[in-house]
Amino acid sequence: MAVPLILLVSLIAGVISIGMAVFFAFLVMKEDPGNEKMQEVSGYIEKGAETYLKVQYTVLSIFVFILFLVILLFLPSDMTNHKVPVVSGDLNWEQAIAYLIGSAASMIAGWLGMMVGVKANTRAAQGCTVGTKKGFDIAFFGGAVMGLAVVGAALIGVSGLYWIFQSPYVVLGFSFGASTIALFMKCGGGIYTKTADVGADLVGKSEFDLPEDDVRNPATIADNVGDNVGDLAGMGSDLFDSYVASIVAAMILANSLILTAAKETFIVYPLVLSGIGLIASLIGIFIIKLISSDNPGRSLNLGTYLATLIFAALGALIVWLMTLNKSLTEGEISRLWRNYFAVILGLASGIVIGWTSDYFTRDDLPPTRNIAKAAEEGDALVILSGFSYGLISVVPPGVGIIIAMFLAYLLDAQFGVAMAAVGMLAIVGTIVSNDAYGPIVDNSRAIAEQGGLGEETIRIADRLDSAGNTAKAITKGFAIGAANLAVVALMFSYAQEAGIIESGINLLSVNVLIGAFFGVMAPALFSAVLILGVQKNAAKMVDEIRRQFKENPKILTGEEPADFSKTISIATKGSLKQLILPSLISILLPLLVGIFFGVASLGAFLAGSILSGFVFAIFMSNAGGAWDNAKKWIEDGNLGGKGTHTHKSAITGDTVGDPFKDTAGPSINTLLVVMSLTSSIFMGILMLINGGAGLIPIL
Amino acid sequence: MAVPLILLVSLIAGVISIGMAVFFAFLVMKEDPGNEKMQEVSGYIEKGAETYLKVQYTVLSIFVFILFLVILLFLPSDMTNHKVPVVSGDLNWEQAIAYLIGSAASMIAGWLGMMVGVKANTRAAQGCTVGTKKGFDIAFFGGAVMGLAVVGAALIGVSGLYWIFQSPYVVLGFSFGASTIALFMKCGGGIYTKTADVGADLVGKSEFDLPEDDVRNPATIADNVGDNVGDLAGMGSDLFDSYVASIVAAMILANSLILTAAKETFIVYPLVLSGIGLIASLIGIFIIKLISSDNPGRSLNLGTYLATLIFAALGALIVWLMTLNKSLTEGEISRLWRNYFAVILGLASGIVIGWTSDYFTRDDLPPTRNIAKAAEEGDALVILSGFSYGLISVVPPGVGIIIAMFLAYLLDAQFGVAMAAVGMLAIVGTIVSNDAYGPIVDNSRAIAEQGGLGEETIRIADRLDSAGNTAKAITKGFAIGAANLAVVALMFSYAQEAGIIESGINLLSVNVLIGAFFGVMAPALFSAVLILGVQKNAAKMVDEIRRQFKENPKILTGEEPADFSKTISIATKGSLKQLILPSLISILLPLLVGIFFGVASLGAFLAGSILSGFVFAIFMSNAGGAWDNAKKWIEDGNLGGKGTHTHKSAITGDTVGDPFKDTAGPSINTLLVVMSLTSSIFMGILMLINGGAGLIPIL
Repeated sequence: MAVPLILLVSLIAGVISIGMAVFFAFLVMKEDPGNEKMQEVSGYIEKGAETYLKVQYTVLSIFVFILFLVILLFLPSDMTNHKVPVVSGDLNWEQAIAYLIGSAASMIAGWLGMMVGVKANTRAAQGCTVGTKKGFDIAFFGGAVMGLAVVGAALIGVSGLYWIFQSPYVVLGFSFGASTIALFMKCGGGIYTKTADVGADLVGKSEFDLPEDDVRNPATIADNVGDNVGDLAGMGSDLFDSYVASIVAAMILANSLILTAAKETFIVYPLVLSGIGLIASLIGIFIIKLISSDNPGRSLNLGTYLATLIFAALGALIVWLMTLNKSLTEGEISRLWRNYFAVILGLASGIVIGWTSDYFTRDDLPPTRNIAKAAEEGDALVILSGFSYGLISVVPPGVGIIIAMFLAYLLDAQFGVAMAAVGMLAIVGTIVSNDAYGPIVDNSRAIAEQGGLGEETIRIADRLDSAGNTAKAITKGFAIGAANLAVVALMFSYAQEAGIIESGINLLSVNVLIGAFFGVMAPALFSAVLILGVQKNAAKMVDEIRRQFKENPKILTGEEPADFSKTISIATKGSLKQLILPSLISILLPLLVGIFFGVASLGAFLAGSILSGFVFAIFMSNAGGAWDNAKKWIEDGNLGGKGTHTHKSAITGDTVGDPFKDTAGPSINTLLVVMSLTSSIFMGILMLINGGAGLIPIL
Repeated sequence: MAVPLILLVSLIAGVISIGMAVFFAFLVMKEDPGNEKMQEVSGYIEKGAETYLKVQYTVLSIFVFILFLVILLFLPSDMTNHKVPVVSGDLNWEQAIAYLIGSAASMIAGWLGMMVGVKANTRAAQGCTVGTKKGFDIAFFGGAVMGLAVVGAALIGVSGLYWIFQSPYVVLGFSFGASTIALFMKCGGGIYTKTADVGADLVGKSEFDLPEDDVRNPATIADNVGDNVGDLAGMGSDLFDSYVASIVAAMILANSLILTAAKETFIVYPLVLSGIGLIASLIGIFIIKLISSDNPGRSLNLGTYLATLIFAALGALIVWLMTLNKSLTEGEISRLWRNYFAVILGLASGIVIGWTSDYFTRDDLPPTRNIAKAAEEGDALVILSGFSYGLISVVPPGVGIIIAMFLAYLLDAQFGVAMAAVGMLAIVGTIVSNDAYGPIVDNSRAIAEQGGLGEETIRIADRLDSAGNTAKAITKGFAIGAANLAVVALMFSYAQEAGIIESGINLLSVNVLIGAFFGVMAPALFSAVLILGVQKNAAKMVDEIRRQFKENPKILTGEEPADFSKTISIATKGSLKQLILPSLISILLPLLVGIFFGVASLGAFLAGSILSGFVFAIFMSNAGGAWDNAKKWIEDGNLGGKGTHTHKSAITGDTVGDPFKDTAGPSINTLLVVMSLTSSIFMGILMLINGGAGLIPIL
């Protein structure tokens, strides 16, 4: 079969995107990096980030190489015949190389985005001395580098590999590469950032009453580095991962479900629409730049909505162009349109899910207000209140996903659901850009403070920072919803590969029920292990900060600088060490379920983990966000303001919420994708065990 | 068909049990109720408990009457033909009356147990002046009244109804009655007890530094009443509920799965073994009484283990007697034995699950120790640590349930699983007795304090109290595990009724996936609503206590008594009001899923709720228990002891844990059973909608 030329859309969009990312990087670099003190601070942050990446990437490279060998030697290259390469001699080069490329693409995109991010922070701070717009533009371009690099690399990789090998299963290798990188970057970054943050808060702020970002706090640089490695690099690799996974799931389903002559058209269809989404994102980015005004938060959200509309219009245009193809039957044309609507449906529901997150975390609405008021009754009630609202907040987006899933299924069964997931992630370029803007301006604020840029500039930097939080509220819900729908699509594609679409995954079979049971427990266990990791690491950080203050009293008076390298090293090493258990869970657990109880049980495992993962991810993200904003609302002078008992209780809520919203909650996405892809990739091995029935295939 | 005479075993055991309960009640009543002050305090508690029961039972009666009418008028009496009575004129008298009897039996057992409990407390306190053994015996007999009343009423009800009507579906009505009562009593009691407890702690202890149980604290009586309505009446009705449900599930499965002539034997088999379990429990109770020594905690646990062994022996004996029946084939005899082993398996795994709870909540083992140590770093870390260990603690009992379920399935498919659930609950008489002992001695301690019985007596009362906690650690895990296996059996019996055993519940169908999604969210939503209810109500309580102290300073000096009736009224009314939403969730949600998406989707809903319910129930119970014990360990003088910052943080953990472990966590059991039974009871209606396919039956 010939690959349809329309695939060029995504390939070209990818290339343009990378080009724009490089162009924006240059724009950012030529800006004024500010005074010497600022450059010093920014230099520390940059060095810290580099150290982290170096250590992470070194370990990751070993890990990737081992998995490369596993794929090459032990996984069958032909999905329809499960001959293991070591026996058959038929090495699985294609998938193994795709895996390497996927890993490398994610690493490079993350590295580029992060390195520009840590250079943009001081420049944006300096920009704030000129005005809101100048500061905003620099930070926004800085963030856009990450957004465009991620989407560009993903599209080029997927389109290119499909062009060459013409097999969605080879592209699955690429996706698995992106996924393993995301697992490390997201979890590692999440642990890093909260180790530093919690440590800095507990000792610096609470015990010694230092203000936020005070340079006397030994953990302050680690805290700033953490914003970059967690929110910037971690988030970028996470969305790279979901994005690719949703496209690949749709491609695999098209490959197996669509049996007409136009099959190829449908296989590349998700790629084409993703390419259009990228172009819409690019236009959105320019619009945001044009309309950026004194209300940067509104600009960011407006940009998202505009990108959505542009995508809908351009998408309709391209579908119309595709339908001009004379070889398509009427049924196929209608199918193209139905899936176009599934895509739009996915995108719209992504926005609605974002709104629900916004509702539960906004400080002018009942949930967060009630949490703030509970702080008046002490620490325990603020925790209970946030915990409860967090759990309740799962329902609206849950219903949103259910409706989207249901309607998409009506439109075109499992392929429709996969296309809805593609749609939800179509404007991921905008989403990542807006998200990456956050840590940059967060850092800018710190640098403005530490560089002594004066109250007015700090006030502007503060506004930019809070705009980042406004945008984040929507994009975060978006990211979780999108990942969720993507893994549902992956589950379908898994079932397709396993050949159980017909026989089904019957919950009344005990094997299947057991699989579902393990699946439901997996995200809970995974979250717990991550939070415990943060807690252990933060305790080390607390000890180190106390030690520095005790051994050198001149740090507190500001006469001598704190030893930043020690705290950075604790955060870096700890984040790597605490990663081991979560990564084992996400790769070994599905394999064990599949090996013992068979592929149907593993399907139920995936379904169970998707559902409970959704509950935990939304609960943790929203509870954490609400606690954070309740605290900020009190700090704005409400309910007595700073320094009161109420404020102290709100800080407890925020500290509990930190690893919820920035470590465990958003890492669950990655867990789900990794588990789904592991199941698909290792399918060949699983099929060797009693034809997929597992070692205990009784029932 | 004739009902096998062997059914007499359970009927007679039930009658003996009720007789013993009444006998024990007399034993308790004739003890010395102590001095005037003690009788006054005990009188307050008794009156508070009565007030609560009166209000609850009034509302419950209305609710029960409405449901009685619904069952009578709208539910088909014949499960095989789904004619609705209002149309066919064939009223569903049998099930409706069974429903009434089930409700009444649960209410009467709860009332008897609670009224004896609130009389036993002051008598046990007085007994403590004589010695540990005397105090223990009174409290233990007091608790045994609840245990025996519950099990006796359940067995007489189920056996009697089956004898008369010879239909497991009629008995289902009895189970549904027990279940709706349990929902109200468990949730209402849980909200009541924690409203009072949290209120008393937050103001009395934290703000005014009053010691535990100080009579100047206006919420102290409400707190004591709460122990009775939550831990005594609530827990009793909860286990009544699970117990009956597990038996009925097994009966229904026997009725539909076993097609040989010996069918009747298998239908009554769970009842017979439950009768044997009750006899073993009775013997266990006498042994505990005999061996009760200076170590009451050990006595209680030893009693549990002995009851287990006696049950295994007597059970084997009765099965052997049953196999003497000449009409049984060899296959049937083997089947009886296989299910005997399933029963023993269930019981053993119940104990193992209890041990794992014990591991995660014992103050001399790593998890609780680490949580206590985290308190040194402040409130936030103690919360994060308890939260994480709580989630991790789900895995060992989860694996335990999985193994039990799997092996039971190997022994005799779905019926084997149902029998394992019956086994887990076989010695529920002992479990409830031990559990009911807890609130009695908790109250005794308070009465000894308030009655001025001196240090030595209070020390003895303290020991009895801590023995209650030791026993509770095991029985609580037991209760959750048992309920979980019971609802799995109910799900199978539901599937049987719905006629989807053959077609299955296929997770790849979008309808089914949606059902599972709602199911997984249900326990999270339910828990959140309950905790929020406690939090809102506790805030009212806090305001009231502050008001009393402010308006009448003589309360604090002890010159004038606090106004207990106000705090009791807040707890009572609040617990009823906050019940509305949770009960709507548990009854309407499954019906809506069934009506819209069909019976297969509802099956997945049940499965999803069972799995996530298990995670939330174990997580909350164990996290709450560990926080509680971490605090107590610190209060014993560790890590600086009382009054330190560490202690204060540990108190925050305990206060967060209170509604976790005493309101939401244990109520989830009831939720699961109510939802399962609602689905089964309303099956006739659901089958009318597109033959069970639901309003949106597309896929």
